[in-house]
Amino acid sequence: MMRRPPGTKPRSTLTGSSDFCVKNIKQAEFGRREIEIAEQDMSALISLRKRAQGEKPLAGAKIVGCTHITAQTAVLIETLVALGAQCRWTACNIYSTQNEVAAALAETGVPVFAWKGESEDDFWWCIDRCVNTEGWQANMILDDGGDLTHWVYKKYPSVFKKVRGIVEESVTGVHRLYQLSKAGKLCVPAMNVNDSVTKQKFDNLYCCRESILDGLKRTTDIMFGGKQVVVCGYGEVGKGCCTALKALGAIVCITEIDPICALQACMDGFRVVKLSEVIRQMDVVITCTGNKNVVTREQLDRMKNGCIVCNMGHSNTEIDVASLRSPELTWERVRSQVDHIIWPDGKRVVLLAEGRLLNLSCSTVPTFVLSITATTQALALIELFNAPEGRYKQDVYLLPKKMDEYVASLHLPNFDAHLTELSDEQAKYMGLNKNGPFKPNYYRY
Amino acid sequence: MMRRPPGTKPRSTLTGSSDFCVKNIKQAEFGRREIEIAEQDMSALISLRKRAQGEKPLAGAKIVGCTHITAQTAVLIETLVALGAQCRWTACNIYSTQNEVAAALAETGVPVFAWKGESEDDFWWCIDRCVNTEGWQANMILDDGGDLTHWVYKKYPSVFKKVRGIVEESVTGVHRLYQLSKAGKLCVPAMNVNDSVTKQKFDNLYCCRESILDGLKRTTDIMFGGKQVVVCGYGEVGKGCCTALKALGAIVCITEIDPICALQACMDGFRVVKLSEVIRQMDVVITCTGNKNVVTREQLDRMKNGCIVCNMGHSNTEIDVASLRSPELTWERVRSQVDHIIWPDGKRVVLLAEGRLLNLSCSTVPTFVLSITATTQALALIELFNAPEGRYKQDVYLLPKKMDEYVASLHLPNFDAHLTELSDEQAKYMGLNKNGPFKPNYYRY
Amino acid sequence: MMRRPPGTKPRSTLTGSSDFCVKNIKQAEFGRREIEIAEQDMSALISLRKRAQGEKPLAGAKIVGCTHITAQTAVLIETLVALGAQCRWTACNIYSTQNEVAAALAETGVPVFAWKGESEDDFWWCIDRCVNTEGWQANMILDDGGDLTHWVYKKYPSVFKKVRGIVEESVTGVHRLYQLSKAGKLCVPAMNVNDSVTKQKFDNLYCCRESILDGLKRTTDIMFGGKQVVVCGYGEVGKGCCTALKALGAIVCITEIDPICALQACMDGFRVVKLSEVIRQMDVVITCTGNKNVVTREQLDRMKNGCIVCNMGHSNTEIDVASLRSPELTWERVRSQVDHIIWPDGKRVVLLAEGRLLNLSCSTVPTFVLSITATTQALALIELFNAPEGRYKQDVYLLPKKMDEYVASLHLPNFDAHLTELSDEQAKYMGLNKNGPFKPNYYRY
Amino acid sequence: MMRRPPGTKPRSTLTGSSDFCVKNIKQAEFGRREIEIAEQDMSALISLRKRAQGEKPLAGAKIVGCTHITAQTAVLIETLVALGAQCRWTACNIYSTQNEVAAALAETGVPVFAWKGESEDDFWWCIDRCVNTEGWQANMILDDGGDLTHWVYKKYPSVFKKVRGIVEESVTGVHRLYQLSKAGKLCVPAMNVNDSVTKQKFDNLYCCRESILDGLKRTTDIMFGGKQVVVCGYGEVGKGCCTALKALGAIVCITEIDPICALQACMDGFRVVKLSEVIRQMDVVITCTGNKNVVTREQLDRMKNGCIVCNMGHSNTEIDVASLRSPELTWERVRSQVDHIIWPDGKRVVLLAEGRLLNLSCSTVPTFVLSITATTQALALIELFNAPEGRYKQDVYLLPKKMDEYVASLHLPNFDAHLTELSDEQAKYMGLNKNGPFKPNYYRY
Repeated sequence: MMRRPPGTKPRSTLTGSSDFCVKNIKQAEFGRREIEIAEQDMSALISLRKRAQGEKPLAGAKIVGCTHITAQTAVLIETLVALGAQCRWTACNIYSTQNEVAAALAETGVPVFAWKGESEDDFWWCIDRCVNTEGWQANMILDDGGDLTHWVYKKYPSVFKKVRGIVEESVTGVHRLYQLSKAGKLCVPAMNVNDSVTKQKFDNLYCCRESILDGLKRTTDIMFGGKQVVVCGYGEVGKGCCTALKALGAIVCITEIDPICALQACMDGFRVVKLSEVIRQMDVVITCTGNKNVVTREQLDRMKNGCIVCNMGHSNTEIDVASLRSPELTWERVRSQVDHIIWPDGKRVVLLAEGRLLNLSCSTVPTFVLSITATTQALALIELFNAPEGRYKQDVYLLPKKMDEYVASLHLPNFDAHLTELSDEQAKYMGLNKNGPFKPNYYRY
Repeated sequence: MMRRPPGTKPRSTLTGSSDFCVKNIKQAEFGRREIEIAEQDMSALISLRKRAQGEKPLAGAKIVGCTHITAQTAVLIETLVALGAQCRWTACNIYSTQNEVAAALAETGVPVFAWKGESEDDFWWCIDRCVNTEGWQANMILDDGGDLTHWVYKKYPSVFKKVRGIVEESVTGVHRLYQLSKAGKLCVPAMNVNDSVTKQKFDNLYCCRESILDGLKRTTDIMFGGKQVVVCGYGEVGKGCCTALKALGAIVCITEIDPICALQACMDGFRVVKLSEVIRQMDVVITCTGNKNVVTREQLDRMKNGCIVCNMGHSNTEIDVASLRSPELTWERVRSQVDHIIWPDGKRVVLLAEGRLLNLSCSTVPTFVLSITATTQALALIELFNAPEGRYKQDVYLLPKKMDEYVASLHLPNFDAHLTELSDEQAKYMGLNKNGPFKPNYYRY
Repeated sequence: MMRRPPGTKPRSTLTGSSDFCVKNIKQAEFGRREIEIAEQDMSALISLRKRAQGEKPLAGAKIVGCTHITAQTAVLIETLVALGAQCRWTACNIYSTQNEVAAALAETGVPVFAWKGESEDDFWWCIDRCVNTEGWQANMILDDGGDLTHWVYKKYPSVFKKVRGIVEESVTGVHRLYQLSKAGKLCVPAMNVNDSVTKQKFDNLYCCRESILDGLKRTTDIMFGGKQVVVCGYGEVGKGCCTALKALGAIVCITEIDPICALQACMDGFRVVKLSEVIRQMDVVITCTGNKNVVTREQLDRMKNGCIVCNMGHSNTEIDVASLRSPELTWERVRSQVDHIIWPDGKRVVLLAEGRLLNLSCSTVPTFVLSITATTQALALIELFNAPEGRYKQDVYLLPKKMDEYVASLHLPNFDAHLTELSDEQAKYMGLNKNGPFKPNYYRY
Repeated sequence: MMRRPPGTKPRSTLTGSSDFCVKNIKQAEFGRREIEIAEQDMSALISLRKRAQGEKPLAGAKIVGCTHITAQTAVLIETLVALGAQCRWTACNIYSTQNEVAAALAETGVPVFAWKGESEDDFWWCIDRCVNTEGWQANMILDDGGDLTHWVYKKYPSVFKKVRGIVEESVTGVHRLYQLSKAGKLCVPAMNVNDSVTKQKFDNLYCCRESILDGLKRTTDIMFGGKQVVVCGYGEVGKGCCTALKALGAIVCITEIDPICALQACMDGFRVVKLSEVIRQMDVVITCTGNKNVVTREQLDRMKNGCIVCNMGHSNTEIDVASLRSPELTWERVRSQVDHIIWPDGKRVVLLAEGRLLNLSCSTVPTFVLSITATTQALALIELFNAPEGRYKQDVYLLPKKMDEYVASLHLPNFDAHLTELSDEQAKYMGLNKNGPFKPNYYRY
């Protein structure tokens, strides 16, 4: 039976197609403008369209996709189409769909099944509609979170006979794939684009360096100068946070479990402490560990009045928020994403985004970072689709180094950056191909 | 026949041993004081002595070593002895031996064969005397540069029957080992300590961050503020140089062949240029590429009057110094390590260390960095010597991650840094052992 | 005739007073909570209340005030009252009044005349009602912008017979006072608190360092890394902007007319250029000169597509916005405070806040900075009110250095900062009083 | 009676003059080369020569000078001569004379009386020979330290009848002049060039930012990363030190007596502490207060083993070095300028330069900074010599702002910095002359 977004009637595009399901197809024009604006900051994809358009490297590809549906994703999808692919698309999140963008995509003939505010049932129905359609069978999967992959495994395992590969973007989805692989159940090659060098550096170090400031500022209007801050975890995310906060005049210390990261923190000028040693003096506590219960109720009890607590890490369990939902504490919502937790003695702790990721909840992801992700996805699809028989087995792969470098090179024009080329003599001396890859796989950027 | 340092007579230690050859055994006391001072900054090794002394993990080890012979190496050697090893030692460089330290080592009974200013013949004679001694056969090799290993391969291949492993410190030596391995000629396990995480980060990023400033200042008294600098290569060394120079007010741009490193440079705030585009404006040109002829004669011709040129990279061929030794140019030595190259029109280019490594020639390596190297070497020896049969084959290995972490942890007390420990629950959640290793092998620090 | 905010009826406070005019006196309780939250970040004023409450240094003071009416100002007003003053208050801006705060003030008995969205007539009517009241005559004036002062001069010059002094906060108001003084028409002492050291540094350098990032991020979601930015003017505001942007990875150059500031920029690592030399390459153009037509139409014509233009300076004439209101250009409002100006060829320039001050329009001023201003105002009032006859003449004065230091010292506890005290011997050696002032008047912080 | 440098005979220049006294006139040629090298980095003075040479603004000036005699001073002296002055010169310090430079100056006809290693008697004899010569009477004095001025006051007060002004460079000399002025005994105008804006910023902030690193590195080879450092005093020198050390990865806290500077430190990200609170943990202690006994014996007793103590401040009394010269402590000179003070329990404190200024004793002052000083001195001489009757009275003056700006502008070409010029309209709007001065006297750069 046909499901529809609440309050809508079945409609068709101007050309009469009705193989889609969006909130309001009439918003297509507005969505088109959003896509055009996004294109301005995603010149790498536009450039990829131009370079690869002659040869249509995705001719014959039938891609079923499940991602956030935003203007930036639309640029990706339309790039895939420009390179020869047929696409069917659904949303990987029930809240994140930009309805007008979905409409614009549908209007150009891409079967899209997504709207903002889907129910759980809607969600799976949309996925199903993408996969299960007469006369069309996917041979590539682009997934973000693993739900689409999971659905195909569960309902239509025979689809995998034709699928040449899965491209997976999220930590969770990649984790599932490695588990499948370990269990010997992965039946097609999969590409882990989450761990590509370029993506990692941008999503973590460079992006968080900016979003920690943005997220704190938008929610609390805090002045950074002179504030005492502890950052739990000195991985890429922690490094980004510490760099930015220190640069703006905060006094930052860190906690670590890993001695190598701890020693890096020393060299970078941060005191390495245990959280309990410093918790009483801190103005801001930031978690970026990937671990759970890093900030415990006991530590929350010892924080000073006005202390801000937030999470830049992976899950929403880094701060033991559950422990704060107890009768002796009063929660007061003072702004969107900002709660004051009030102790019986009047002490207030400022909790941001209820312990969920600050950078996702309270700041925006720059289009430039999304461009890097989307370009990486596109190249991974091209690689898997065109790889000669046998290059990839039923396993999880990292993006070939050369492709990682290609993603980077497509983004250099944004900065008017001019690469140097090796002379023949130099390439020989270094034992390198003049076109890369330039580094061994184990190289640490 | 017995060789001796020029101008010396055969001598013996106070206890009568004469199985050594140093410049002047009477300098032993002075050397001892140097060693004691070095010990103060190498608390990691002292701490290793204490932790491992009970169990004597090197009991039975017969180590033949070939390294620079300095106070810091002496702390390493005496640590190995304290852990149960017997050692024989020689110098890997004909100039770098501290004679008084060699004397102090000899006086305590370590057979040392080395003096400052050896001839080529002396050099090989000393190595030979270390290896080829009656009634003692090495079962471990610690090498820095590969000359000792080479000599054993060439002259005493049968020694390898008893050798449990080679620990190699230098880029060159490691390169030779990989070649041997590739050629199927490596007949014992070898540990590449050069590429251990901790060592790499300290030798390159952190150490160069300081030594670029030091090397430039000591040679030229340059004021950094406002100077236009181009750094060729944005690897770890380049990153260190750029960070330091920018922090001191220089205006820095970089050149790169690798688009990923180039994009990192953009994010870090450095313009990415081709050398020829900017060469005319630069006050300082620094190479850190590992490549050759990065600065060509044509570019040297176009530099402005007073431009400083130096090399922080790998070999001494990054700057085409040979091209400057031509009749139309005048060389004027204005200070130790500083030459003015004078063009016919009077233009002067300031060449440092004749294009050799600035950080080795014109600044000092902090004891702390040497401590990290020495600790890594000690742990690599312990690992190889004690590894159960079969763990290591006839191949080149990186230091196990856990040992890398252990090196770091031994250095944390220097900074009063306090590590956080995982709770059982957290370790389980993360799927980690509470004692590490804490990161997968492919992790990029 | 009684004016009232549109849509309101005359009302009285719970205690029956009707000597006030606010939007809705019933919002008082909500306003009280806002004031309490502000108090948490204005501990310097609270501390001043405590220290000075015994002696009531403002007993007998009748202060008429004209400032923004916000929770922070309320903390100031209530501090003045706590120190013994009687106050009547009005708004210096027709848009900035927080209605609920005005209500809360009125409820506690402070005659407040202000609401958000006054007409020009309302504005002057409110000022008049503050000054012209039976049985009460002001003896102190606290002004922000000079409108209150102007009104008194024009309508009630005789008031000045009793007024002991004017405290003026704004650049514009201070400028007017200096002109009056120059013209020999200033008839009471006036204190220029705008140029106090502490206020200047915080309002300009430290505050702008944070608000440039915040303002750009909230309006454009720009990623700073690798962006080419030109900052026009390297005074305190420019220095703050440059420091922050450079720290976040932007590549920043500056323009200057003053060679001293230009040389400082060189030393701080910024290229000093003429705007027209670089305008084509820039991603962001920021003005902070205090001058007019710093960015001309000709330069706007030459900017690249997507270039962001904004003003952190003084007036809204730094960018020649007027020149953009011409028929060949299309304005498109894409967000609050963000216009795209579209050239006939499709090029878009992104203009923020229509060229008005970015930091006021698109970011928030941290409470901490407002606390410094308010504390300075309170101390200036105390000083002028209590100064012995003759200390101040009919002239404009800077805050005495010692008071400036006192403002700073009241804010140090926020940072858990511990001052060192001079020993008697040291004070004597330095020729200083142990309690300050510690620096000569000409000292440059 | 004629004094001569020990071991010399009276000699004359090639042209036969014998009105000079230097160590060895034959070194003139070598000195000339040193001067030529200095000229390369002092292009501001060379440019001043060119701009002013036509009009010879010092024609008729008879300048007696007492400064350090170095290649850089020689460039100043020869500039003064090129501008029309006659000069006689002596050294302000008994150790600092470069003998070969003195010879080169003498050879070109400047009567120089100075050599390295003068006795106290020699020192005054040289000064006397400069002032007291037949047929020549000084009408301008250039002094550094006030000794020359003192001598003239004491011995030849009548000289002041013809003197148009004194230009004084040092803190001490300036202090003496202000005392004379206060006492009503100053009988000619004096220019305090020490406090000119440009000189202050360069001598203190920018120069110390570099020399603290250089001085520490050359003496101790310390690695900065992770070191805990306390800087006493957060004035310009302290700010420079803190900025540099923080940038290189040290963890820096500060002490202050002045709440304004303390608040700046907070904003810049430094904890403000009392020395005694942190002394036990510190790796490095640096004084820059201008005060005495800032580091006391009691604090020295509490330092940890290996702590480095040094002084970047004004006098050599900031560290109570005298208290360390007591029998229970052992002094060990480990290098030039480096003493280990050894406590009975074996603890060593590393004292640099015996508590004298680190930047003067253990690092070099960049020629660029000396160029700024010398240019300022030249302009002050020109100003005082040419000032119309009455512009300067018998008082101490700061350099006119416009001249300060001129000094800066002469140094901008070194950085290829391009100043922007005000349009007529803009100058009018700002109320400024297009050629400056651009800032009011009280402006804080």
